[in-house]
Amino acid sequence: MNAVIDLLKSHRSIRQFTDQPVEQTTVETLVEAGQAAATSSFIQACTVIQVSNPNTREKLAACAGGQPYVAAAPVFLVFCADMKRHQLTCDMHDAQMQSGFTEQFITASLDTALFSQNLVVAAESLGLGTVYIGGLRNKIAEVADLLQLPDMVYPVFGLCLGYPAQDPEVKPRLPVNVVLKQDVYDDEADRGLITDYDAHVRDYYKTRTGGTKDMSWSEQISGMLVKESRPHMLPFLQERGFLLK
Amino acid sequence: MNAVIDLLKSHRSIRQFTDQPVEQTTVETLVEAGQAAATSSFIQACTVIQVSNPNTREKLAACAGGQPYVAAAPVFLVFCADMKRHQLTCDMHDAQMQSGFTEQFITASLDTALFSQNLVVAAESLGLGTVYIGGLRNKIAEVADLLQLPDMVYPVFGLCLGYPAQDPEVKPRLPVNVVLKQDVYDDEADRGLITDYDAHVRDYYKTRTGGTKDMSWSEQISGMLVKESRPHMLPFLQERGFLLK
Repeated sequence: MNAVIDLLKSHRSIRQFTDQPVEQTTVETLVEAGQAAATSSFIQACTVIQVSNPNTREKLAACAGGQPYVAAAPVFLVFCADMKRHQLTCDMHDAQMQSGFTEQFITASLDTALFSQNLVVAAESLGLGTVYIGGLRNKIAEVADLLQLPDMVYPVFGLCLGYPAQDPEVKPRLPVNVVLKQDVYDDEADRGLITDYDAHVRDYYKTRTGGTKDMSWSEQISGMLVKESRPHMLPFLQERGFLLK
Repeated sequence: MNAVIDLLKSHRSIRQFTDQPVEQTTVETLVEAGQAAATSSFIQACTVIQVSNPNTREKLAACAGGQPYVAAAPVFLVFCADMKRHQLTCDMHDAQMQSGFTEQFITASLDTALFSQNLVVAAESLGLGTVYIGGLRNKIAEVADLLQLPDMVYPVFGLCLGYPAQDPEVKPRLPVNVVLKQDVYDDEADRGLITDYDAHVRDYYKTRTGGTKDMSWSEQISGMLVKESRPHMLPFLQERGFLLK
């Protein structure tokens, strides 16, 4: 359709990087591109921690369940949803902030994601590769301590950044007619459409792994969802001042 | 830096649109661009409801606090965080889904935001303008009923889409050194930096409104945060199967 859409549609996660460094001015340009995303009621709730300390990087890689690229990537960013900055604006005006609302948690988290995705698009437009590291939430309290995050700030995810040293295939997505619905939510056809898609994903995995991974999308997802999903998240977030009401 | 980054940095919300229609094939292309964004553990948790019914549009505009462009925009999309699809994958494999975790709410919400932001970038690359409508959450239960959303699906935000009939200025963002921190969270300098930025925002509003709006960023934010923030969100989400543990 055009070069931007081609760029977006060619996204793959990159986990192996060349030694080519990423200039700090580039990182700043990427952050500016992130900031340019829409922000809910202008709250600008995203803070990015750029982690360069190798010791911290190793610890973050361990927190993420042993993902070596967290330590090895030329640049590693942690995107935080930050309402402490808003506490500061209230202090500046002797105003009493009403905090702890679920709505605030949602807007801060969404702001962070819009920001990060703009940053990812900007990075990919410069030939950089990225991978989001949601695995930081495995040990979120430890991550928050390592980064000295105060209350009202939580690490949403990390991002590895660098010049790609691999060229993986694009992963097939659900059919558009599963994801795009007209006027109302109607999923009557979804089971059949997902079954077709399952075959497609199974082929993708077989090709990518030389036959060793034989799995459909619905198998993968259902296998994941029979387990608990980071049950420490709610108590952690509440301790930090989020999701209290 | 390059054309993509220039595009990202030129983002402004567009609330007035020409009569030029948006082709349905374009909407589908945009959705595909949205789908191409990273997705947490491949969950693909975003569902888009394209609302064309004029009656529903009017009601959604009212839900959003009377934003007329919700009814008037050539295209209106509601981005939903959808875990019902995952319930379906579990049913397909006779698996017992463990649901209600805060972590699942987070990943589904983030997935939706990464998707929507890719879609926005794609739209802007085609010369379309957009505005996110978080105001749908004012009356989220009514919105969910209008769109016949089942449990495990919630409307995150809407998006107006069309060819721009206005050309507003880009809104100034926080200084990069407030938003980007090195190795640890340190906000010692932020108060001073925000004070400088406040003057910048005050100028922007004065210019944009011909002098009638005289407000800084910290004033605007603190004025907003002394009030309750959509206190109905938590009970609504819990009723729908989210944030239960």
